[in-house]
Amino acid sequence: MRNLPQLLDLIQDFSTKNPFPAAPAELYEPCAYILTLGGKRIRPALLLMGYELFQDDVASALPAAWAVELFHNFSLMHDDIMDAAPLRRGKPTVHTRWNTTTGILSGDVMLIYAYRFLSQMGDPEVVSNLLQTFNRVATEVCEGQQLDVNFETRADVSIPEYLRMIELKTAVLLGAALEMGALCARANQTDVEHLYHFGRSAGIAFQIQDDLLDTYGDPEKFGKQVGGDILQNKKTLLVLKTMEIANTNDRSELDHWMKTGGENPEEKVAAVRAIFDRNNIPSLIEAEKQRFQKTAFEHLDAVNVPEERKAVLRQTLGDLLGREY
Amino acid sequence: MRNLPQLLDLIQDFSTKNPFPAAPAELYEPCAYILTLGGKRIRPALLLMGYELFQDDVASALPAAWAVELFHNFSLMHDDIMDAAPLRRGKPTVHTRWNTTTGILSGDVMLIYAYRFLSQMGDPEVVSNLLQTFNRVATEVCEGQQLDVNFETRADVSIPEYLRMIELKTAVLLGAALEMGALCARANQTDVEHLYHFGRSAGIAFQIQDDLLDTYGDPEKFGKQVGGDILQNKKTLLVLKTMEIANTNDRSELDHWMKTGGENPEEKVAAVRAIFDRNNIPSLIEAEKQRFQKTAFEHLDAVNVPEERKAVLRQTLGDLLGREY
Repeated sequence: MRNLPQLLDLIQDFSTKNPFPAAPAELYEPCAYILTLGGKRIRPALLLMGYELFQDDVASALPAAWAVELFHNFSLMHDDIMDAAPLRRGKPTVHTRWNTTTGILSGDVMLIYAYRFLSQMGDPEVVSNLLQTFNRVATEVCEGQQLDVNFETRADVSIPEYLRMIELKTAVLLGAALEMGALCARANQTDVEHLYHFGRSAGIAFQIQDDLLDTYGDPEKFGKQVGGDILQNKKTLLVLKTMEIANTNDRSELDHWMKTGGENPEEKVAAVRAIFDRNNIPSLIEAEKQRFQKTAFEHLDAVNVPEERKAVLRQTLGDLLGREY
Repeated sequence: MRNLPQLLDLIQDFSTKNPFPAAPAELYEPCAYILTLGGKRIRPALLLMGYELFQDDVASALPAAWAVELFHNFSLMHDDIMDAAPLRRGKPTVHTRWNTTTGILSGDVMLIYAYRFLSQMGDPEVVSNLLQTFNRVATEVCEGQQLDVNFETRADVSIPEYLRMIELKTAVLLGAALEMGALCARANQTDVEHLYHFGRSAGIAFQIQDDLLDTYGDPEKFGKQVGGDILQNKKTLLVLKTMEIANTNDRSELDHWMKTGGENPEEKVAAVRAIFDRNNIPSLIEAEKQRFQKTAFEHLDAVNVPEERKAVLRQTLGDLLGREY
């Protein structure tokens, strides 16, 4: 069994040995560029961990793992255009450094390269199974992005709708990565499904944690500006929960802040946090996260392999979901 | 053996029975919309014809045929954004009727649906073979679009470069449609390759014909405005050939018209046509087309099936390539 750093080394090595073609440079350079912006490579690592539950020759699953990472980066490249985001991890986004045409076309070819790596898995039965899972989840990611776009202009988004959106936009891909790892290892259908639900539920818990960290994270440990969601007036789970349970005064004060206050960001963040705090929002949201986290690990428990094979997966997801506020 | 109208009926029937999902409507309505704008459905028809060379149950190849049509429409949706095209077949393009975000995201999901239909072909061996061909050609289409984008800002495009661009951007997909039909029918590798080269060479001939028709077509028969390429200062094969063979005077006159003359379109079209005519460009380009057309039909001749099975394919491509000027 390999630990996370060992798996990340394998992934890095595979990507180095499988670069994009040199020409046309205008098409492929942006694909290489977005991959240099970093990212935890957690999706391909999960795929390899899913594989290692059942089989030892983990390198044979690398093409499928890389396919998932390329898909993720394709979706980032196109989302950045749709969100008009100038920066990603502090560097210019592809459509900013080049232009929108480049962002669209390089994203397209990156998606197609994801499918190319899938097809490198060789055994037609495995390729065919992977293709079905990958198509299903790729469709869902597009649907999740559409819901996210729709929500920007809607004032009446419910908490179940929000949870469904983060499930589709990000959580299902974590589930699919694990599922695909199991499919590469020819695991049985029950274990495949448990792994999918493990990743999916953990992914929802992770996104809920992300909403919490954005407002309550330790500035030293959290990579982004704390309070960024508040300053961007994002309808996060914290806002939706407040709108569900707070009294009229707090609701209208929050509503007021979401339309104003940009000129004094520190005052705005402090005021909105105070509304969250007096409505006990952090612990309510933490409970919501715990609910999904518990479901996730019940599915991991149910996977029918010896407990020692689950250690890396248990630790990695535990670390990801164990962030302090 | 079914003729073209019968195959088109099968395709229409399949598309009616396999609509996009209803929700999210913002994502899927533009996919249905672009399919209503028409188009000859020549690519799926070619796939079915490729299949019928070898097997009779042509309906079983419909998912693969529809995958090729969806891929084609995905590429149109994204190309229209990159070209900033307001209209397609006289109707608003997707990004014009909706917006760029919609054009990107609906295009993405349409590409993923193409892969979904591929995976519906059932037999893992067939799916795996189709996936390899489809991935190869999808990559090439993106590369061709990139070359087309690059050429807009280059003054030194050569004729071989131009031919390579139209080969990648459009011809290889016609070849791949035929190849995939043969793969669905489990034809042998030699016949699969002949069919690919038949479609590819015919596709190049067709694009060359398209350049000719744009300037020399019968306005009654040609769907678009005759002279459109001249008015848009497009570096078509006619322009490139003139720049290759004409004397200094004609070259500089053509160069002058490509930078001016928009205020009097009829005068401009007539003047540029006169340059083409006195340099014998139409017959030189027609000879180029004939060269590819001849190669195409040599590959069809070489396919090892009885001649009567080739009749529909021979007639359909003959009609497509037999347009009068």
